[in-house]
Amino acid sequence: MLRTHTCGELSIKHINTTVTLCGWVQKSRDLGGMTFIDLRDRYGITQLVFNIETNKTLCEQARQLGREFVIKATGKVTERSNKNTKIPTGEIEIIVDSIDILTPASNPPFTIEDNTDGGDELRMKYRYLDLRRSPVREALELRHKLAMATRNYLAGIGFLEVETPVLIKSTPEGARDFVVPSRMNLGTFYALPQSPQTFKQLLMVGGFDKYFQIVKCFRDEDLRADRQPEFTQIDCEMSFVEREDILRTFEGMIRNLFKTVKGIDIPELPRITYADAIKYYGSDKPDTRFEMKFVELTNLVKGKNFKVFDSAELIVGICAKGCAEYTRKQLDELTEFVKRPQIGASGLIYARYQNDGTIKSSVDKFFSTDELKKWTEAFAAQPGDLLLILAGEQNKIRKALNELRLEMGERMGLRDKNKFSCLWIVDFPLLEWNEEQQRWFAMHHPFTSPNPNDISLLDTNPGKVCANAYDMVINGVEVGGGSIRIHNKELQKKIFSKLGFTDEEAHEQFGFLMTAFEYGAPPHGGIAFGFDRLCSLFGGVESIRDFIAFPKNNSGRDVMIDAPSKINEVQLKELNIKSLL
Amino acid sequence: MLRTHTCGELSIKHINTTVTLCGWVQKSRDLGGMTFIDLRDRYGITQLVFNIETNKTLCEQARQLGREFVIKATGKVTERSNKNTKIPTGEIEIIVDSIDILTPASNPPFTIEDNTDGGDELRMKYRYLDLRRSPVREALELRHKLAMATRNYLAGIGFLEVETPVLIKSTPEGARDFVVPSRMNLGTFYALPQSPQTFKQLLMVGGFDKYFQIVKCFRDEDLRADRQPEFTQIDCEMSFVEREDILRTFEGMIRNLFKTVKGIDIPELPRITYADAIKYYGSDKPDTRFEMKFVELTNLVKGKNFKVFDSAELIVGICAKGCAEYTRKQLDELTEFVKRPQIGASGLIYARYQNDGTIKSSVDKFFSTDELKKWTEAFAAQPGDLLLILAGEQNKIRKALNELRLEMGERMGLRDKNKFSCLWIVDFPLLEWNEEQQRWFAMHHPFTSPNPNDISLLDTNPGKVCANAYDMVINGVEVGGGSIRIHNKELQKKIFSKLGFTDEEAHEQFGFLMTAFEYGAPPHGGIAFGFDRLCSLFGGVESIRDFIAFPKNNSGRDVMIDAPSKINEVQLKELNIKSLL
Repeated sequence: MLRTHTCGELSIKHINTTVTLCGWVQKSRDLGGMTFIDLRDRYGITQLVFNIETNKTLCEQARQLGREFVIKATGKVTERSNKNTKIPTGEIEIIVDSIDILTPASNPPFTIEDNTDGGDELRMKYRYLDLRRSPVREALELRHKLAMATRNYLAGIGFLEVETPVLIKSTPEGARDFVVPSRMNLGTFYALPQSPQTFKQLLMVGGFDKYFQIVKCFRDEDLRADRQPEFTQIDCEMSFVEREDILRTFEGMIRNLFKTVKGIDIPELPRITYADAIKYYGSDKPDTRFEMKFVELTNLVKGKNFKVFDSAELIVGICAKGCAEYTRKQLDELTEFVKRPQIGASGLIYARYQNDGTIKSSVDKFFSTDELKKWTEAFAAQPGDLLLILAGEQNKIRKALNELRLEMGERMGLRDKNKFSCLWIVDFPLLEWNEEQQRWFAMHHPFTSPNPNDISLLDTNPGKVCANAYDMVINGVEVGGGSIRIHNKELQKKIFSKLGFTDEEAHEQFGFLMTAFEYGAPPHGGIAFGFDRLCSLFGGVESIRDFIAFPKNNSGRDVMIDAPSKINEVQLKELNIKSLL
Repeated sequence: MLRTHTCGELSIKHINTTVTLCGWVQKSRDLGGMTFIDLRDRYGITQLVFNIETNKTLCEQARQLGREFVIKATGKVTERSNKNTKIPTGEIEIIVDSIDILTPASNPPFTIEDNTDGGDELRMKYRYLDLRRSPVREALELRHKLAMATRNYLAGIGFLEVETPVLIKSTPEGARDFVVPSRMNLGTFYALPQSPQTFKQLLMVGGFDKYFQIVKCFRDEDLRADRQPEFTQIDCEMSFVEREDILRTFEGMIRNLFKTVKGIDIPELPRITYADAIKYYGSDKPDTRFEMKFVELTNLVKGKNFKVFDSAELIVGICAKGCAEYTRKQLDELTEFVKRPQIGASGLIYARYQNDGTIKSSVDKFFSTDELKKWTEAFAAQPGDLLLILAGEQNKIRKALNELRLEMGERMGLRDKNKFSCLWIVDFPLLEWNEEQQRWFAMHHPFTSPNPNDISLLDTNPGKVCANAYDMVINGVEVGGGSIRIHNKELQKKIFSKLGFTDEEAHEQFGFLMTAFEYGAPPHGGIAFGFDRLCSLFGGVESIRDFIAFPKNNSGRDVMIDAPSKINEVQLKELNIKSLL
């Protein structure tokens, strides 16, 4: 190695040792006759010292070093008179004897500091410089640790990591596939996997019993903020299991990850049905770091000649503890919030349960004090609390109240990034009716098993069939989801037919899976976790971008390498395809 | 779980326990009043017993079970009278009380046995059945173990696993890229990476210091036997290193893998220069499990009026210990072998150094006994040895003799799959002249650094420049290769220009890397191992196919899922491309 030590390891016990360090010039300060340089590498920062009186040439050489120059410095470890207690190497400094410039550097286009002056696009373009910043490096170190801990945990309980192929077959059900034209089989295409779903099921048919993989998946979707065309899953499957086994196994995994990676004890995960999640939180991924459950008032408040309520399908609200003192301005802000087009409520009704026990509401002229008192009872509100109520069409209004609840959680400081609330959502509907296409869609995917008791409803009332499916939700984020799968060919055919597949289409796309089921498929089920999201959650950061080494922007571009880009005519010709632009 | 135990864990200490097992019916035997079923899962085989006298209905039900039915059986663990010492569960059997058929099975198209009757294509089509066979399952278990051991070793010495992107940019230098048409950026394409080479270098520029990744790579090449369009690499890179550091680090890794996964101690790896490897083995990946080094006779044998020798550029041979007794037929076979078009020698000269000390050769009429005696001395041959000699154009003849040496090693039983001989090949040439295209090509890749002492030769004698590159070879297989990289923009530009890139082409394809070098690139180097090949080598198997869960055939097809395949018009239209077939 060009160095004897890293920039993060020297301490008081190395005093008088002669060492050689390599790294980047973080900053340089001239103080009278002394020059100080902070030398940085992945492991830390060490202070180099040059004295103009004892070595003029060297000190002048040091003063020429620009930011981000890569240098090698040799010198003696010395105790600092002026110790820096904020960094591990802060007790020592190096009295430098010689330096080599390994590579000079142009001035970086943004500062390499924890709080940089670089904007998003600039940092993406020079991602290799952004990677030098501690927050980004630490995010990727966390990702590495999480991946290692995941693998060691799952391998420790008998799971085998198996790599499934990346060049597979296009199956248009679900999201849009990325495709890859084949040169050796002209006119045909591979697709990149949206998930290894069918392959992991085939591994179960193949007797692999417990499979996992940390694996790249691909979806050619229009990118919303923080969606990436390629993303990583922790993909898992087990044989001879029932739902309970999967929930316990992966509850074990997530609790282990929190313990080993963050030192946090997570209690057993509560389970909430999909129906209750919608009823109490208006969302199938509720943030349960705080309560503030929905309370339905429909029966209590109708028929008092208040048209907004009387014409509403659902009247439902939340109780914001201790917010009775909200100002008019704050309430107006909340009203504006719920009326934003993406939220879509037509207005907000409030009732302040004031500290003196009186109640002041925005609908005082329709409701008596006694009636309002009953509202507070329905919410189990205390003096000092604020009731926020929405009315309208039930699906729309539950979604809107979910947003308002999250907004209130944010305003009230109840969404602490260092607190983690994990739970399972169970008993999802199997099918969703799509009005536009006038057909049923699988809520999870077509391989999800119905609850055994509901199979008879498939013909009579498909919308009522529950799936044997489950999601893991942490802090309002769906981090994982899965199901017990269908392992019976006839049932699988029936589901395909419910989803509008003809027998031919089902056979062409998934014939291999149904054929596999003829040769002895074990009962099986599994789960997949969004690894990028899990990392950002562990890191306490909203965006997943910093947890991906080389992310793409919202147009799916890598602005650093400039991809995608044009390819040459020879390549197009060999593939026998033509770009129609 | 549907079971209490697996089929691989019950032993004498479980006697009288009531257990429930799940698995596949491996085979069924009726012996008079008793029926025996071997139940199989990933963990082993357990014998189930049914007695027609004690439970007629159950026994008859058991007799209906076909091969590969998936069943659940409950019963009591009992000591066997007739123990099977070949399997871990052979001391016990289960007296069954009840069985459930979980899934019936059609008769499999080939037998699920260690030695199956299924041909390659059939086993690929029903890969999920092939995966049930022990050799295939064990191959993938070995792969899992090797991957875990690799990660734990590298993470243990400070390497971070970082995922690099799969959707990148096409760079036509090197092998052919698979490309992915972009829908969001019509008319442009992503490419799938042939390796994460430039990204790992950017991680070094980003200060990551020690990177690794077990990663899928892609090459759209015409497939030779046992080449796959997608393959897996152990990809590694380190900063502030010299060649010695890389060799020691990865020698440490490979020795650790042999120790932890196979319990084998590998000695320190010898290093052979490329020039010596070619001189003594005719190959840059010599199989050094056995000696049989090349001996050059050119000066010794020319000028004796034997035209074959007199007109040859090189006369070179090997000494096959103890093979003097080879029959005429055997020698004819060897002659046929070297004359095969893919080997390309025009003939084979031999000399038997017989046990009585006399020498009999195929060229007796041109060479005296004394002269032949000198040959044996050149080979340090002993009585009983056989000399095999080729003559002709030197590159061609070295290659041919390499093949003959390997063939002799095979025939003499010197290529034991359980013996491992690892070494480094160093000092490769940097550039290779391509006659057809009349230009220099990079022997490794364009990012390889020349040996510092040779840089001046770049302009005067490019063919003589040595690369700071190295390959790891095990048992005649190149398992890994790498180099110290260029980290200086000017040198990188110079190399691109030597390789025939215009400045514009270099900028368009690799501008991002050269720009990165302007902002302070550390000296760095790395290596990549072919993981599929490493697995097959550890498994002692020639073919890599069984070490890949879902391999493609020699036409790049997955015959199980039938990919690649046609995609629908909507997909083509959205991508704005047209297939010209």
